[in-house]
Amino acid sequence: MPHFTIEYSANLDDRVDISALCEVVRKAAVETGIFPLGGIRVRAIRCESYAIADGRKDLAFLDMVLRIGEGRDLPTRQKAGEHVFQALSRHLDPVFASSKFALSFDMQINDKETSWKRNNIHDALKVEAAHG
Amino acid sequence: MPHFTIEYSANLDDRVDISALCEVVRKAAVETGIFPLGGIRVRAIRCESYAIADGRKDLAFLDMVLRIGEGRDLPTRQKAGEHVFQALSRHLDPVFASSKFALSFDMQINDKETSWKRNNIHDALKVEAAHG
Amino acid sequence: MPHFTIEYSANLDDRVDISALCEVVRKAAVETGIFPLGGIRVRAIRCESYAIADGRKDLAFLDMVLRIGEGRDLPTRQKAGEHVFQALSRHLDPVFASSKFALSFDMQINDKETSWKRNNIHDALKVEAAHG
Repeated sequence: MPHFTIEYSANLDDRVDISALCEVVRKAAVETGIFPLGGIRVRAIRCESYAIADGRKDLAFLDMVLRIGEGRDLPTRQKAGEHVFQALSRHLDPVFASSKFALSFDMQINDKETSWKRNNIHDALKVEAAHG
Repeated sequence: MPHFTIEYSANLDDRVDISALCEVVRKAAVETGIFPLGGIRVRAIRCESYAIADGRKDLAFLDMVLRIGEGRDLPTRQKAGEHVFQALSRHLDPVFASSKFALSFDMQINDKETSWKRNNIHDALKVEAAHG
Repeated sequence: MPHFTIEYSANLDDRVDISALCEVVRKAAVETGIFPLGGIRVRAIRCESYAIADGRKDLAFLDMVLRIGEGRDLPTRQKAGEHVFQALSRHLDPVFASSKFALSFDMQINDKETSWKRNNIHDALKVEAAHG
């Protein structure tokens, strides 16, 4: 946790650097201060086939879903979500200016009773911090 | 909202035109009458790696998840879902006739308290409607 | 049902055979004994763009979500999930040994009131069993 999964219409490829966009989301997630650094995972999935609104091919979308663990109250989640969304939205201002474009972001909470993980990134970051 | 995300086994590529299938879903979503036109986003994700049932590679699947906002009662959601599923299922009759194939469709509701969006497609459609 | 969707950072491509990994998950799902064989669908989605933890490109992740139908109690779901996760985790021991890597697995339950399916794999398997 947290998992940010971005789906986007393939016609954004020539308008947006998607790897740079993932980095914008990652940095904003770190800035919220509510996520352990070693747990942040942002990824994007390019959708070659899509159909939007009235079906015109020049329309575009980018949709992000965040899955997080239980244990943070609603105001905390809302404040963090707002911070990440504003960073993402600002980054996409040029797309809004030049395109018919729909951006969206939703947050989901994973059930801690049926959640498994194994992660050696946390420890690697701690070792580096201790020797940094 | 609404977001239709389709995942499918890559072996459908030579049996189904996936862009045309997205368009079938989009049109059916419009026909339900319960979704704002500018919010409809259908996309498909091709899964190159998969394992189905007893593991034979000629088996195929297509799975669709719809995420919508809160505020529609269960009968409304069921009627709309049934309409979209029947359109999709009919479109895939040839695949059922020629293949061992599993089709599925599930609906999820997003939490409106942690949902963000920015969309200039709605306004573009209104301007066109006013001048059309 | 059940649907296993795996998302992974593209840098795993030269460390993991993803089709073989899907097969490991499929076999483990069969072994749980709680899923009808003809309903098991495992697939993986390669994520070319990603940003993990502090942003270094050599970090990697693999995240799996299982969506199942209603009707199984929590201990049953936990036991099945544990079995599948342990099989997946063991399979990835070499990645943990050589990489900074985050593995995760979450289970979701689909609302049976808004769930549709059509599947001719079940019948095909029954016919084969009767003639096998």
